[in-house]
Amino acid sequence: MSSARQLHTISGRFRMEHGGSLVDPVIAYETWGELNFQRDNGVLLFTGLSPSAHAASSNEDPSTGWWEQMLGPRRPIDTTKYFVICVNSLGSCFGSTGAASINPETGEPYRLDFPVLTIEDIAIAGQRVVESLGIKRLHAVVGASMGGMTAIAHSILFPEVADGLVSISGAARALPYSIGLRSLQREMIRCDPAWNSGNYPLGKSPIDGMRLARKLGMLTYRSTAEFEQRFGRERVPEERQTGDIFGIDFEVESYLDAHAKKFIGTFDANCYMYLSRAMDLFDVADHGGSVEYGLARVGARRALIIGVETDILFPIKQQREIADGLNKNGREVDFRAMPSLQGHDAFLVDMDRFRPALCDFFNCTMNQPGALRTAS
Amino acid sequence: MSSARQLHTISGRFRMEHGGSLVDPVIAYETWGELNFQRDNGVLLFTGLSPSAHAASSNEDPSTGWWEQMLGPRRPIDTTKYFVICVNSLGSCFGSTGAASINPETGEPYRLDFPVLTIEDIAIAGQRVVESLGIKRLHAVVGASMGGMTAIAHSILFPEVADGLVSISGAARALPYSIGLRSLQREMIRCDPAWNSGNYPLGKSPIDGMRLARKLGMLTYRSTAEFEQRFGRERVPEERQTGDIFGIDFEVESYLDAHAKKFIGTFDANCYMYLSRAMDLFDVADHGGSVEYGLARVGARRALIIGVETDILFPIKQQREIADGLNKNGREVDFRAMPSLQGHDAFLVDMDRFRPALCDFFNCTMNQPGALRTAS
Repeated sequence: MSSARQLHTISGRFRMEHGGSLVDPVIAYETWGELNFQRDNGVLLFTGLSPSAHAASSNEDPSTGWWEQMLGPRRPIDTTKYFVICVNSLGSCFGSTGAASINPETGEPYRLDFPVLTIEDIAIAGQRVVESLGIKRLHAVVGASMGGMTAIAHSILFPEVADGLVSISGAARALPYSIGLRSLQREMIRCDPAWNSGNYPLGKSPIDGMRLARKLGMLTYRSTAEFEQRFGRERVPEERQTGDIFGIDFEVESYLDAHAKKFIGTFDANCYMYLSRAMDLFDVADHGGSVEYGLARVGARRALIIGVETDILFPIKQQREIADGLNKNGREVDFRAMPSLQGHDAFLVDMDRFRPALCDFFNCTMNQPGALRTAS
Repeated sequence: MSSARQLHTISGRFRMEHGGSLVDPVIAYETWGELNFQRDNGVLLFTGLSPSAHAASSNEDPSTGWWEQMLGPRRPIDTTKYFVICVNSLGSCFGSTGAASINPETGEPYRLDFPVLTIEDIAIAGQRVVESLGIKRLHAVVGASMGGMTAIAHSILFPEVADGLVSISGAARALPYSIGLRSLQREMIRCDPAWNSGNYPLGKSPIDGMRLARKLGMLTYRSTAEFEQRFGRERVPEERQTGDIFGIDFEVESYLDAHAKKFIGTFDANCYMYLSRAMDLFDVADHGGSVEYGLARVGARRALIIGVETDILFPIKQQREIADGLNKNGREVDFRAMPSLQGHDAFLVDMDRFRPALCDFFNCTMNQPGALRTAS
């Protein structure tokens, strides 16, 4: 466990939106910056499917975080101004309670006895952390990908809490194509005999299933154009070829393999499936009968909605739908369509485009020439 | 074996382009219509990865073919005018020699001892059938998807043979994104313990691996827009739900599952992998040093090149690249960009758009009002 990680126990019975409950679930989180005297400078950050709460480095944990360039002193979300809280999602496996955790009622890991997880459950669990810190109002709730869904859910379920909403490459509901892709990823895991109906030894997730699922993920997180630019039809050097007739030959195959192998061993397979399924189930229309009515319930007064033109998994029309829905209800909405090549993952990579957008929303000073240098 | 199927044995040693050879390989084919006295009304049709040579029904085999609406009397490729030959690709498993065939030199199935297969090998084997029929000149060579690649290869390797070239949703070379997807499909099969390094009992291809690969295929053969229109977020009726927490819930999951199960048992897994890999390896630049020089070698004088705007697997810019390359060399090129929703598979489904295009190229009469009725 990293020394920056803090744990909040939600005492008692935590009822899940689709039925079932958890006893004393724990949410892992990290914070950066200081809560001000008015307690109104908090920013709650929800993650995508796979990251931990370690969004950025800190004195307590100097290792690079997953959004290192976006978060910190004199960064777009400036931690000399804001008190940032990033939560590891309920259902994940980096300190928060999930399918790999011990069920206190049985003393055994939940595994598939974990109740159905929804994006709303993740949002509610995140809000419990905010409350535990004595915060009633947030400056903003922020998220990308699954986190972009969760931020919307938070703003619907707790309309009085966050003044601002930042939803990046998110969606008001999962499209059938995305559901098909995620369903196939889950089936890859379930087809691996080592999965053993979810009863693999904890810490030993099924390697083949997770590798295949991650490779499909990587193909949907980026764009055809980026693959062409990066890999073309380059072959791997002879010394890295396997000699196998169906082994690794093209650089693109080598890239997918190397990155998928990194993922294996860090993520619990059952947790992955619960989080993946939660995205499929998400539908803002569950709050009010239609996407339009659901978005009307969003409490944020200001919103930054970002989509990427090359996103296959959460196509840009989904972010446009969110922006249009929020616009109708008299909010201040900044919608940005990014021409990034990196598809769904652009928010992690195309910092030159994303930094200014976040910077504008958070009134940072880094866009002014020399600001970064003079301020530090 | 269907009664329309004919077999041609290519006697002797058939040398493969990437090394290795086959002894007396067999090519299965079907024909429709009659060869005219001048022997110049032949049309050679190459298939995509999965179909047999049974492109259309006939007296000998009245079952519906895979391109039934395109091929036949008074159809766009009018078999009262043309003598159409459709070949089952070398390397496939519907009568032609492939990895599931017996190697006459050993008396055992080839399995992974089958040599590396290329699109060029498929084109050459098809040409051997044409020659066996006493045909020196073809009216056209035609193909879609993998067949669109093969038709181009044929026109490069045998520039004197076909006067016309029809390449639908094909490519001058595989893109890294498409290679990544196909590589992952092959890996799904290889990860299935039942694959057993290619040594499964013949006729018993690994079920899980083939089902996963086919599902990914189906997700890449269609478009996000079509999935949305067809399935939305519809749930399967309760009586068809499995009760399993990760079982089939959405209609899109049910659709993928039903169609993938149909595919299993009809296609040999090793053959699938050889054909899939052949597409990855295809690069017109191998003929002349660049795609431009390769396309300059195409012998056809007239060409119809069709692409579909929603195609993920063979994006439309790849067909534009072919059309542009052919245009440079003074050919008569008709390039059509189809706005079909059905993506890569549109040529099998969106007949209202594809029929007129083929009809124009083959000078059929069906587009004239009443032609279909008066002619029959």
